Amino acid sequence: MVEEKNILLTIAYDGTGFSGWQRQPRARTVCGELEGLLSAVCGIPVELFGASRTDAGVHARGQSASFSGRMGIPATGIERAVNDALSQNRLERVGEIRIVSALEKPMGFHARYDAKGKRYSYRIRNTGRADLFLRNYCYQVAEPLDADAMQEAASFLVGEQDFRCFLSAGGNPQKTTVRRIDSCSVEKQDDEIVLTVSGTGFLYHMVRNITGTLVEIGSGKRLPAEIKRILESRERSKAGHTAPPQGLYLEEVYY
Amino acid sequence: MVEEKNILLTIAYDGTGFSGWQRQPRARTVCGELEGLLSAVCGIPVELFGASRTDAGVHARGQSASFSGRMGIPATGIERAVNDALSQNRLERVGEIRIVSALEKPMGFHARYDAKGKRYSYRIRNTGRADLFLRNYCYQVAEPLDADAMQEAASFLVGEQDFRCFLSAGGNPQKTTVRRIDSCSVEKQDDEIVLTVSGTGFLYHMVRNITGTLVEIGSGKRLPAEIKRILESRERSKAGHTAPPQGLYLEEVYY
Repeated sequence: MVEEKNILLTIAYDGTGFSGWQRQPRARTVCGELEGLLSAVCGIPVELFGASRTDAGVHARGQSASFSGRMGIPATGIERAVNDALSQNRLERVGEIRIVSALEKPMGFHARYDAKGKRYSYRIRNTGRADLFLRNYCYQVAEPLDADAMQEAASFLVGEQDFRCFLSAGGNPQKTTVRRIDSCSVEKQDDEIVLTVSGTGFLYHMVRNITGTLVEIGSGKRLPAEIKRILESRERSKAGHTAPPQGLYLEEVYY
Repeated sequence: MVEEKNILLTIAYDGTGFSGWQRQPRARTVCGELEGLLSAVCGIPVELFGASRTDAGVHARGQSASFSGRMGIPATGIERAVNDALSQNRLERVGEIRIVSALEKPMGFHARYDAKGKRYSYRIRNTGRADLFLRNYCYQVAEPLDADAMQEAASFLVGEQDFRCFLSAGGNPQKTTVRRIDSCSVEKQDDEIVLTVSGTGFLYHMVRNITGTLVEIGSGKRLPAEIKRILESRERSKAGHTAPPQGLYLEEVYY
């Protein structure tokens, strides 16, 4: 039935080939690709609102985005039609982007403004042997890292705090730089160290700047407790480097 | 010292972004990229001869290639300079192609003509859940495959035989289609089934056509012993489909 619908998409993508999430006039972006396909499938001009504006090279297993309009196609039909169009590889039915689910939501629901929190993971490959097949999927760090020291430092990040020290220049001006981190864990998995962080919201480059700082702690350049002084300073220059985009995954958006 | 040298390179590459190994006028190829860099580094026009002409999308951990000419730079200097130029990512020092080693060989040595054999592996991801981050690195097969049946069939491939049934149309005309396979194993590893095959030489698409046939055996469409009749038929049409390129890895060239 043709009626006004509000659709929430959960989306996975490999960010390697995209100039990030956010639509741009002359660049290939995830949002731009999806808007084109959704407009064709739904028969209306679609404007898609993503919960997170992931940077170029950043991946997602659970980005959320919503759009609305008068359309006849049900949510399940959108999922199927868009995934068909996205399957570059017909035999195996897998593409760079996949709609994980499409759900009809009440009018007024908005993927960005209604998000209660997000969970990200960051993959560090910590071995002297770089793996060229993983170059777009993790941060290659040759120096041995002490995951326990990184976990100790990570525990100081939990709670409601001013995270201004982890805000990169170039982000949108922010009203407040106070956020709440609900959990932050560092886990060693074979040749990798995986950081998982969830919270109410994240500043521009915040997870990558946290990761860079934790890597410097893991390599022994800084002590774990130093992260408390970095937070108190509220100065970006006191924190560590910005870890590269390809290790970062948007895992889930909470509502 | 500037003198006539013959250099053997061992090369790893991610084939995703290339139109295969072999130089072509208006396509990005691994050989073409390397010839450009080697010419600049060695100060001579370099013609590089690869042991295997891998197809578009096929990967290598151990391709071999040789070139010769009058040059002052030692083999170790070539390795370092080319890898520096190939490190797209300066921080992590990893690119799409890497020179694993560069060795000086006696004049007259030729990477292709002196090769005694090759080993390939083929990665099949065998689960209903396609992983979009692996789409360029394995063959996604949703139907459950019986690895034991595939191994039973694979054992019939070992030995010196006429492998014409696994030669795809479009390859170079071959004098003989007799080759010797020294080993062919099928191993289940978590969500993957990995085929490893080594032999004296391989016909055009031979490993991919063997893989496609073994997948049909693994899914129960054919019986393991059928592979004997397929071999005897010497007809391509009797064998299975051509497995896609992205699951194939050239692991090693033997001398």
